[in-house]
Amino acid sequence: MSAKGIRTKDFILDASYALFAQKGFKQVTMKNVCEITNMSRGGLYSHFPDTATLFEALLEKISDKNAFDIDTEIDKGSPATVILNSALLQMQKEIGHPEDSLSVAIYEYAQMNDPQRIIKLNHHAEDKWERLISYGIKTGEFRDVDVDEIVSIILYSYQGIRMWSRIIPMKKKVSDQIINHIRKQLIP
Amino acid sequence: MSAKGIRTKDFILDASYALFAQKGFKQVTMKNVCEITNMSRGGLYSHFPDTATLFEALLEKISDKNAFDIDTEIDKGSPATVILNSALLQMQKEIGHPEDSLSVAIYEYAQMNDPQRIIKLNHHAEDKWERLISYGIKTGEFRDVDVDEIVSIILYSYQGIRMWSRIIPMKKKVSDQIINHIRKQLIP
Repeated sequence: MSAKGIRTKDFILDASYALFAQKGFKQVTMKNVCEITNMSRGGLYSHFPDTATLFEALLEKISDKNAFDIDTEIDKGSPATVILNSALLQMQKEIGHPEDSLSVAIYEYAQMNDPQRIIKLNHHAEDKWERLISYGIKTGEFRDVDVDEIVSIILYSYQGIRMWSRIIPMKKKVSDQIINHIRKQLIP
Repeated sequence: MSAKGIRTKDFILDASYALFAQKGFKQVTMKNVCEITNMSRGGLYSHFPDTATLFEALLEKISDKNAFDIDTEIDKGSPATVILNSALLQMQKEIGHPEDSLSVAIYEYAQMNDPQRIIKLNHHAEDKWERLISYGIKTGEFRDVDVDEIVSIILYSYQGIRMWSRIIPMKKKVSDQIINHIRKQLIP
């Protein structure tokens, strides 16, 4: 694809993020995406044939970006604690903005489509955390924890609070507790 | 209410549980409940005016039962570890049966109704775990943990895995990891 094509795709993905966060997956139409991007139907359809393909590309972009950030930092030899703190800060910011959460959209998408992509997304998130925690154990910065166990606690407590913060107002205290718990597990 | 009235209400709640677990909240109609209970419209409406009231009564019943079980055991002086193990076993069973999860129904209900009842439900669950953990610390069976922090980890990792197990097939290993993590936090 041309550089311009990639830029347009990226622009569409960035613009439609808010739509999916706000409306979930089912209620977003290609017409909504045309409106928010100010593109013609023809222009939009030349990049994405339907909202499922668009949403899949969006998930992939987010997932790749997260993995890339961690990989880059590890390759640079940044301390594991620094990478962890920035990942936890990111997590805390996300929890503080339930209106930006794609949880509902992911749930609705998975009900209507092959869940294979969501399984892959989940694997990516697991891999990312596994890589970081194993790296921190190797550098001696993290405790010698059961990596898979801590990864499950991180991923599911995050998902739980993300989803529930869409249902009820969530006190900041609760996200602090979860972030502190994760940090305490890893940092001696 | 007469004993018979209470029995009928209980019967309706038990029968409609599977409906809400399967279909969520939005898609359940009073007609569905008539069908599953084999009751007339008049019979059903004399107990519940709408599906929201019915669902609220169902949530209250489950929440009361859970709290009652813990209270009764504490009042009997059962060891905290025994109560914990039975609560965790219950949790593990529930995670193993995503088709019985009310997570989606709760989410949909909260979108369409005053979230006050869901906030109350969440408080009840917090109180139940707080009571158990404080009791175990007092008897010396549990570590002297930050109670609120562990309660948040328990509730949200449970909610996260409950919701995600509706989206993707969940390996039993993951629920074992979460249950083990909780047990390790509490039992020295």
